[in-house]
Amino acid sequence: MKLYNRPPKYTWKELCLRPQLQTEFLEGRVQTILSRVKKSGDAALRELTRQYDKVDIQKIQVSDDEPMDAEQQLPDKLKQAIRTAAQNIKTFHALQTREEQKTETTEGVTCWRKAVPIEKVGIYIPGGSAPLFSTVLMLGIPAQLAGCNEIILCTPPDQYGKINPAILFSAKEVGIKKIFKVGGAQAIAAMAYGTESIPQVYKIVGPGNQFVTKAKQLVTLEGTAIDLPAGPSEVLVLADAYANAAYVAADLLSQAEHGTDSQVILVTNEETLIKKVVQELETQVAKLPRKEIAIEALKNSRAIILSHPDTIGFINEYAPEHLIINTIDCDELVNKITNAGSVFVGSYSPESGGDYASGTNHTLPTNGCAKSYSGVSLDSFVKYITFQKITKTGIEKLGPTVVAMAEAECLQAHAEAVKIRMTNP
Amino acid sequence: MKLYNRPPKYTWKELCLRPQLQTEFLEGRVQTILSRVKKSGDAALRELTRQYDKVDIQKIQVSDDEPMDAEQQLPDKLKQAIRTAAQNIKTFHALQTREEQKTETTEGVTCWRKAVPIEKVGIYIPGGSAPLFSTVLMLGIPAQLAGCNEIILCTPPDQYGKINPAILFSAKEVGIKKIFKVGGAQAIAAMAYGTESIPQVYKIVGPGNQFVTKAKQLVTLEGTAIDLPAGPSEVLVLADAYANAAYVAADLLSQAEHGTDSQVILVTNEETLIKKVVQELETQVAKLPRKEIAIEALKNSRAIILSHPDTIGFINEYAPEHLIINTIDCDELVNKITNAGSVFVGSYSPESGGDYASGTNHTLPTNGCAKSYSGVSLDSFVKYITFQKITKTGIEKLGPTVVAMAEAECLQAHAEAVKIRMTNP
Repeated sequence: MKLYNRPPKYTWKELCLRPQLQTEFLEGRVQTILSRVKKSGDAALRELTRQYDKVDIQKIQVSDDEPMDAEQQLPDKLKQAIRTAAQNIKTFHALQTREEQKTETTEGVTCWRKAVPIEKVGIYIPGGSAPLFSTVLMLGIPAQLAGCNEIILCTPPDQYGKINPAILFSAKEVGIKKIFKVGGAQAIAAMAYGTESIPQVYKIVGPGNQFVTKAKQLVTLEGTAIDLPAGPSEVLVLADAYANAAYVAADLLSQAEHGTDSQVILVTNEETLIKKVVQELETQVAKLPRKEIAIEALKNSRAIILSHPDTIGFINEYAPEHLIINTIDCDELVNKITNAGSVFVGSYSPESGGDYASGTNHTLPTNGCAKSYSGVSLDSFVKYITFQKITKTGIEKLGPTVVAMAEAECLQAHAEAVKIRMTNP
Repeated sequence: MKLYNRPPKYTWKELCLRPQLQTEFLEGRVQTILSRVKKSGDAALRELTRQYDKVDIQKIQVSDDEPMDAEQQLPDKLKQAIRTAAQNIKTFHALQTREEQKTETTEGVTCWRKAVPIEKVGIYIPGGSAPLFSTVLMLGIPAQLAGCNEIILCTPPDQYGKINPAILFSAKEVGIKKIFKVGGAQAIAAMAYGTESIPQVYKIVGPGNQFVTKAKQLVTLEGTAIDLPAGPSEVLVLADAYANAAYVAADLLSQAEHGTDSQVILVTNEETLIKKVVQELETQVAKLPRKEIAIEALKNSRAIILSHPDTIGFINEYAPEHLIINTIDCDELVNKITNAGSVFVGSYSPESGGDYASGTNHTLPTNGCAKSYSGVSLDSFVKYITFQKITKTGIEKLGPTVVAMAEAECLQAHAEAVKIRMTNP
């Protein structure tokens, strides 16, 4: 870890920078993939899957018996864990439904707003070394709770044309029935445009590599909504003299193992803690199966010594995706956090609790986006429609206001639509 | 208007298409403007303002006395109208605050979520023929209610270097103190990157022309959030045999006068209504100051005859920005609308009511985006942070679930962060 001892404020902006990914080169390649899928549908998907996933897929949709086979393959302990996590996620996200009152803003003018599920949504789950079945729960459960009518899932097949059984089982648990063996930018294209096999959706959610992220960005320009701008995962741990250095090190490592580009930051007011944490890191990392990745990520990580309240000032400037507050006064500090994705309060709250099973969502804003974006929630799967009903009395009362404003904006027809109702009721 | 008599369902998709704008050519030009502002700050803003707005601006920020002068210039009737509208908008948007309960998803695992204002937001108000001071209210009021700490406003100066007094007065009414005389893509750049005069913000909201829209899209790729993908405004009027044809025509015209690219659609189950509406259109349009624009827009507009419930099916497929339901059974139909920005219910509810003063927001999703996007609301100015606090008991209860899932995802360090707390509490 690189050590920064009481860095002056003017250096914080630079300390908050994440490594810039060069993604310009991607645009042309991804645009080509999008165009191919738009033009040739399933045929393009089969070709691209052959090219990128090295497998021939005849039937793109997962058949009914595949999830059943998956259920039989999985150990009971894992199935139970998935069900427990699903229940907690459901409990937490169910609180996010809301009912708003109608209001009469002026006599005879009643306004209200209603959450309506997005009819068709697509979930993307990456393949690769780690089968992210937990993300199936994190995206599928709020989509189901919101009442989305059609929820589809795309994920790349392995070299045998199969989907990881834990992904299939998780999808079955949350009631996702349409699963497709397609990954990468071609999966995003398929969901944005529709193909013979894959229905078009209105919103695409889920993590992915740079190709997937670029494809998601590009389809938004054509009207498909997406969840979040995605970037490498990050954690910031705030710890004080009371923190257990072994816990702190374990938390830093749980982020560092994600990828060599993971962002890992320790902020503390206690200089002696850093030495202890570094020792613990060395001991713990040695035992990890993904230690090469973790060691590489730690090279870019930072330990920053700051006094209170600069600690909090820095955190809000950094706007971490995950924030662990491992301090004696954590309950007080929590109220001062204004920019973060998800916050883990106290010494028994590791990030991995929320990554899997506490109930909060793990799809969160990275790269400082927590300053303006929320993580995925029930809100990600609904849109709000506003309504107003104006009565004859209402138009009499409100009409003169509308007419005065419309005429001042030089929009006479706007004024006339009111006037005609007032003069010729 | 083009007439479509009971178009078969397979033609609906095409009937729902909006004219495609060719915006590829914009990207290079807008990117150049962004780079210039990023590099040269205020100096670039002054040069670009000279080039596009034909005026020399020394002091970019509006001085304290300009809003006071504006207040003196405006007629009392207009000031009163702005205050009345502001009050209604405030009343409606204040209902959108929400408090969520904490929940214990597992014994010792408490999760909650908190809305936190986006600290810095920028509002863009276009210049041009119509001074859109109503949009200042629609964006400024929810930003204030949300509690945003810094709310700035950019709008282009006129040829004398002045801002329209109604815009200045509206900004003063909603408490916006920092106003800058900059328009176009350069204003978006200034707010996204910051300059010597203009502070950087985390989210930019507000309508604009194609340059502004493209600039907003491009800055999102660098992390600045925006409100909505913007496009030409649109209304769909659903009317039946009971509808007053003069009202229907007035509503269609109030949309048509916006611009030649405005989308105007009439859907009815009553063939005879169309003839009456067309007659009314001819009479009414002749009296409008913006009749050339309205006539041009009407050429591309559509009158569609459909039987119930195909009427509703078509509306939800079209997903109009504004929907007027001018039918005898409007209160019943309203519950069947699943895709629309804002809905105007009954014969005394013209779109212009909501454009200005009923209380609902007028910044709404266009071009079919109502299928997945909401209009601007209080939610546009907050983000939600999730929190979790796990106790010693909590980690004992939840731990095995997390460990089982983390290990199945091949993320051993995630499991270890939990295990270390269980074995070494």
